[in-house]
Amino acid sequence: MKKSLLFLLAAMIIYPLAAQQTVHRDRGTIISPEVHADGSVTFRLEAPAAESVEVVGDFTAADPARPQPPTASLTLNQEGVWHYTTAPLRSELYNYHFVVDGLAIKDPSNVYIQRDIASLMNYFIVGGAKADNYAIQDVPHGTVARVWYPSPSTESKTRRMCVYTPAGYEDSLCDYPVLYLLHGMGGDEEAWLSTGRAAQILDNLIAQGKAEPMIVVMTNGCPQHASAPGESHEGMYKPYGVRSMDGSFESSFGEVISFVDGRYRTIRSARGRAIAGLSMGGFHSFYISLNLPTTFGHIGLFSAAVRPTSGGIGGVYDNSDEKLATLFESAPALYYIAIGREDFLYDHNVELRRRLDEAGYPYTYIESEGGHTWRNWRDYLVDFLPRLFR
Amino acid sequence: MKKSLLFLLAAMIIYPLAAQQTVHRDRGTIISPEVHADGSVTFRLEAPAAESVEVVGDFTAADPARPQPPTASLTLNQEGVWHYTTAPLRSELYNYHFVVDGLAIKDPSNVYIQRDIASLMNYFIVGGAKADNYAIQDVPHGTVARVWYPSPSTESKTRRMCVYTPAGYEDSLCDYPVLYLLHGMGGDEEAWLSTGRAAQILDNLIAQGKAEPMIVVMTNGCPQHASAPGESHEGMYKPYGVRSMDGSFESSFGEVISFVDGRYRTIRSARGRAIAGLSMGGFHSFYISLNLPTTFGHIGLFSAAVRPTSGGIGGVYDNSDEKLATLFESAPALYYIAIGREDFLYDHNVELRRRLDEAGYPYTYIESEGGHTWRNWRDYLVDFLPRLFR
Repeated sequence: MKKSLLFLLAAMIIYPLAAQQTVHRDRGTIISPEVHADGSVTFRLEAPAAESVEVVGDFTAADPARPQPPTASLTLNQEGVWHYTTAPLRSELYNYHFVVDGLAIKDPSNVYIQRDIASLMNYFIVGGAKADNYAIQDVPHGTVARVWYPSPSTESKTRRMCVYTPAGYEDSLCDYPVLYLLHGMGGDEEAWLSTGRAAQILDNLIAQGKAEPMIVVMTNGCPQHASAPGESHEGMYKPYGVRSMDGSFESSFGEVISFVDGRYRTIRSARGRAIAGLSMGGFHSFYISLNLPTTFGHIGLFSAAVRPTSGGIGGVYDNSDEKLATLFESAPALYYIAIGREDFLYDHNVELRRRLDEAGYPYTYIESEGGHTWRNWRDYLVDFLPRLFR
Repeated sequence: MKKSLLFLLAAMIIYPLAAQQTVHRDRGTIISPEVHADGSVTFRLEAPAAESVEVVGDFTAADPARPQPPTASLTLNQEGVWHYTTAPLRSELYNYHFVVDGLAIKDPSNVYIQRDIASLMNYFIVGGAKADNYAIQDVPHGTVARVWYPSPSTESKTRRMCVYTPAGYEDSLCDYPVLYLLHGMGGDEEAWLSTGRAAQILDNLIAQGKAEPMIVVMTNGCPQHASAPGESHEGMYKPYGVRSMDGSFESSFGEVISFVDGRYRTIRSARGRAIAGLSMGGFHSFYISLNLPTTFGHIGLFSAAVRPTSGGIGGVYDNSDEKLATLFESAPALYYIAIGREDFLYDHNVELRRRLDEAGYPYTYIESEGGHTWRNWRDYLVDFLPRLFR
């Protein structure tokens, strides 16, 4: 018994010593952010020597009568802990950071972060409504894999993709439909999984019966790189925004499809294929579907960077009228356009719709509040998925 | 032409606007850390208003005559950028953070981070020797998947694992050997991939012909949780160290093996199975191999938390002499013990070896410098993998 107690004691010592190599260990009891039942959120930072601490976030108050400013000052208590509680916030995924004496820092008590190009951002979820779709629920979960595929037409020859296979895929003999889901400028194959919460949205909508079980393939739309930063032998460079809208990625997309159809049990026809993307990825979806006009039965343009006239880098818009005609001859089940009224690409999308209207091509149009934001792109994905493969 | 230029201009605007939702965007040109060809490293932080900036890291100088202190002060230049350059460092993966006016912060210019329980740590790699194994090289890459498996004997019923399948697995018809690789206290199914760099080490050793192509299954050794923090419907709680050495995870391990053998093309016998773990995971490997004495042909105990006498929580050590005898009757191809001379578990491992020696059981013993550190555990993995399945 005494020995057991000694062992217990020894085992307890293991915890603080579990990683001597760790140069900084948060052993504190500070909880930040703390999301309360009413949707208000408390931020805390232990910084007794600081002179000022602010929180900066993309907050939206649940009740306009109780607005929540995007920047707020924290108050220092006697224990050296700065704290601030917001008004109740609308159900959403929020990003924030602290500013301590003028220096922007991450919240050291929050391990949950997303990356946007070269910036890490703390995040939290206020549930209770739409953002419940972004949280992990007690439902069957799909498998998420990081996969390398051959891409002989690009410089790196092999490239990285993220693949979501729905719960049940591995134990089934069925063929599954595939959504190719493309990121925007500055993003990469991780963007829809991280900031887009695509795996959670899929798990939840499929479990609710709102979306068909489907494979989702998230590629890297920048052929200058084989993968997201730090995930290839290009090394751990500082990420930077890469614009790739000259057809070089788009024209390699046949390699993606043939790899996916070779490796996974897929429905190998337009009725089982969708392509959608945000911003630059909306342009990619536009371009790829024009050039492979019978490949996709469902096309989604989220805040798409489309300029639907001739020209463009590498002539990517050349003959787009003829190509649109060919595409719509094959009568895609869904041609979907979504954009926010404040999006800087709004007018380009007005022009695209005008062309579609003039030619009499059917499409679905969603106009939302807000601008060129992940908040909108998550909304569009939640709206788009139930329309596929039905 | 004019329109093309306008489009180019519009496209360039997309970059800064690509994520209006981002509340903090690092648009700076600060590169930190910068690893130089000689292994010295420059740190930089833009903080013109700060009064003092220090870097704290687990540095090891390449040349003892030019030592590198673990804490060093940065110097402010006229542009408001603090900077410091280390002595040349030995090839290694290093962690560090900054301290600004007494507050520990992450390096805002470095997006590469690892998590240890509730702490995020910046890291970088100094290559040129052993740490080249931790970097991603231009070799074929395996697939890394996050997979949910049924675990009816545990409270969560389904649990999460990470699975590495080697390059070529999907295009082959062969059965593959499997290494079950277990984390320590405070870790989870992500630990060996993140801090352990297991996927990179496997890609590199397999490409060099030093290790056999193998499947590697990384489980979560804390049955109190279904997954790593934030990866299950338990939500985005603040991570805390979980000790689980009472047999409750270990006794569910048959569920892991039967899932893996059902889903993957595996060699379903001891010659094609290995189990290894660090610290608490070393205890798990010890315990599981004792209780499934004909299942694993290769057993690895890295800095293992073994107290090889009777008793223990839940009687996990009961009858261990008899169980060891049964295990060694089946003549495992490898029984591997590795520990650092400064490890606080060193004496327990001396005692384990004494027992093995007295009984005349063969084993391989590696004694290294240092203590209970990921640095050692990565070294042990690199040493262990080539000994498997040969």
